[in-house]
Amino acid sequence: MMTAPFSTLDEFSALLDDQPMPDAAVIEAAMARNNVLTKPPAALGRLEDIAIWYAGWRGEVAPKIAAPQVLVFAGNHGVVAQGVSAFPAEVTAQMVGNFAAGGAAINQLCEVAGASLEVIALDLETPTQDFTTGPAMSGEELVEALQTGWNAVDISADILVTGEMGIGNTTSAAAIATALFGGQAVDWAGRGTGVDVTGYGRKLDVIEKGVALHAVSSGLDVLRCLGGREIAAMAGAIARARSLRIPVILDGFICTAAAACLFKANPSALDHCVAGHLSDENAHGRLLEKLGKRPLLDLGLRLGEGSGGALAINIVKAALACHSGMATFDQAGVSEGE
Amino acid sequence: MMTAPFSTLDEFSALLDDQPMPDAAVIEAAMARNNVLTKPPAALGRLEDIAIWYAGWRGEVAPKIAAPQVLVFAGNHGVVAQGVSAFPAEVTAQMVGNFAAGGAAINQLCEVAGASLEVIALDLETPTQDFTTGPAMSGEELVEALQTGWNAVDISADILVTGEMGIGNTTSAAAIATALFGGQAVDWAGRGTGVDVTGYGRKLDVIEKGVALHAVSSGLDVLRCLGGREIAAMAGAIARARSLRIPVILDGFICTAAAACLFKANPSALDHCVAGHLSDENAHGRLLEKLGKRPLLDLGLRLGEGSGGALAINIVKAALACHSGMATFDQAGVSEGE
Repeated sequence: MMTAPFSTLDEFSALLDDQPMPDAAVIEAAMARNNVLTKPPAALGRLEDIAIWYAGWRGEVAPKIAAPQVLVFAGNHGVVAQGVSAFPAEVTAQMVGNFAAGGAAINQLCEVAGASLEVIALDLETPTQDFTTGPAMSGEELVEALQTGWNAVDISADILVTGEMGIGNTTSAAAIATALFGGQAVDWAGRGTGVDVTGYGRKLDVIEKGVALHAVSSGLDVLRCLGGREIAAMAGAIARARSLRIPVILDGFICTAAAACLFKANPSALDHCVAGHLSDENAHGRLLEKLGKRPLLDLGLRLGEGSGGALAINIVKAALACHSGMATFDQAGVSEGE
Repeated sequence: MMTAPFSTLDEFSALLDDQPMPDAAVIEAAMARNNVLTKPPAALGRLEDIAIWYAGWRGEVAPKIAAPQVLVFAGNHGVVAQGVSAFPAEVTAQMVGNFAAGGAAINQLCEVAGASLEVIALDLETPTQDFTTGPAMSGEELVEALQTGWNAVDISADILVTGEMGIGNTTSAAAIATALFGGQAVDWAGRGTGVDVTGYGRKLDVIEKGVALHAVSSGLDVLRCLGGREIAAMAGAIARARSLRIPVILDGFICTAAAACLFKANPSALDHCVAGHLSDENAHGRLLEKLGKRPLLDLGLRLGEGSGGALAINIVKAALACHSGMATFDQAGVSEGE
């Protein structure tokens, strides 16, 4: 196992400012290739944009996707004690067991996408601190979670999806969004796994309290005070993928909240990411807008686990299969249009 | 090769009124199964609806998709002589060659979807009659095209996509939509493969002329007078899939126009069909609304060839993989929510 090249938040922060950029010459060559493929101009719509974007990050004019990786991080949240979720905290560990046994949605979705799946549980027996009483994590705990995510990325993967499992983590994600982008808890909080009206009221209170208590706004401070280990691990994995020029498909609201902390730290930190889907969780669309991301899918999912991201793998794979596998007008002897 | 059980339009029409319906008991059992899978209620959004719908058609509570079939029909249109397309008519045959050589978008998309692909060219050397001067097809020609589509469906397929290639066929499809649902040519015609402004004006004129000349409104008359062989073949294949209880994923504007002729003949004729995507071709959304279909994808494709339908295969496959492969709360020992 590799060792992450940072051991403090300052070092991680410095890394975010020293990441690779896409290859401009490859992008130009990929655009030129796209223009001569046997189809009317722009007839493959967003698939064309995705293919060119992906080519630029991989530094290859006509790449294909052969090794998707899905990482699911699991963590527990102290704030669950306040009754913000429809499910009890022990479900996090139970679902980790379900992932291991192959019984969860993400297992099936990875199979359809031809993706490897690794599930990493982060100290489930030690929930983060209830963020209404103190910072969710210490600096050391945050660094450790970021390192776990960083180290989990397979260097031979060619696309990455980060997902999560953590009872209570829509509360954490909504608190993150409120702290990063302002507004009220009600602007960012939804019903999560389906909490009832009373529970939803508690959830809003808890978010307002947490945001007021910490009064932080920098990406990494917000992540530390209001986040969770699985959220931090996703951020670490997204940053690591960037360092390896591995494009990332973002999943739903919680994954996007993790990504948003990186975005706040450095607005170009998510240039290698595409939004896999629009979740049915209330504020996901608004959060994606803040990041300038347009989702590929809109199917009303609100499950987490990386499910929406995994579902989008085959869309990105299809984009590259067309871009890199189609014949040109010359090769096929097909007449071009007017 | 099987022989289609109809040799006249009346016989085909009678078949449309004597098709199987979904299995209500299986739908109920599939809904019950969906309710106990290890996820919050409704957390897989439209994937859940799709899985239950598919189960009902297959008559199996927990089916999977293992044998998708994509059929691409190609035909030529007499109306092309009037300058309605950005590409010359010979491109239809050239693209059929490209399909055979594996160089088109649909070849790559079928590979990603694990689908078999069959391309059937219908009398390319004999275009349909220019519909501004007479009916595009005789009754016998229409029956023959419907039979070709009917006979092409693989009885062991478990999901079908019908696609097309035919220079000029957005003109034909827009004329069909105008005749079936009223309005002006401009309400239904788009730029197709990218015809210029002058060509677009000609396209509108041609559609208005054709619709006025024939003054037909029944599904099969519209198909005969304004359609094309590839469009009729798609209709024949969609009807055959229904007789075999094989669900169909509709592709874009032209495929939907073919389906609309069946819908006009019998409003329940498309109950086994889901809309694969929303095409970028102008009036596709309006046409889907007329059929009461909500598209699965919206990625700006406007290529035809069955491309949007093929892209949606993995979405439907994923829906069934989750529905049929996930553990129940009991099986996994996961606590249910409140």
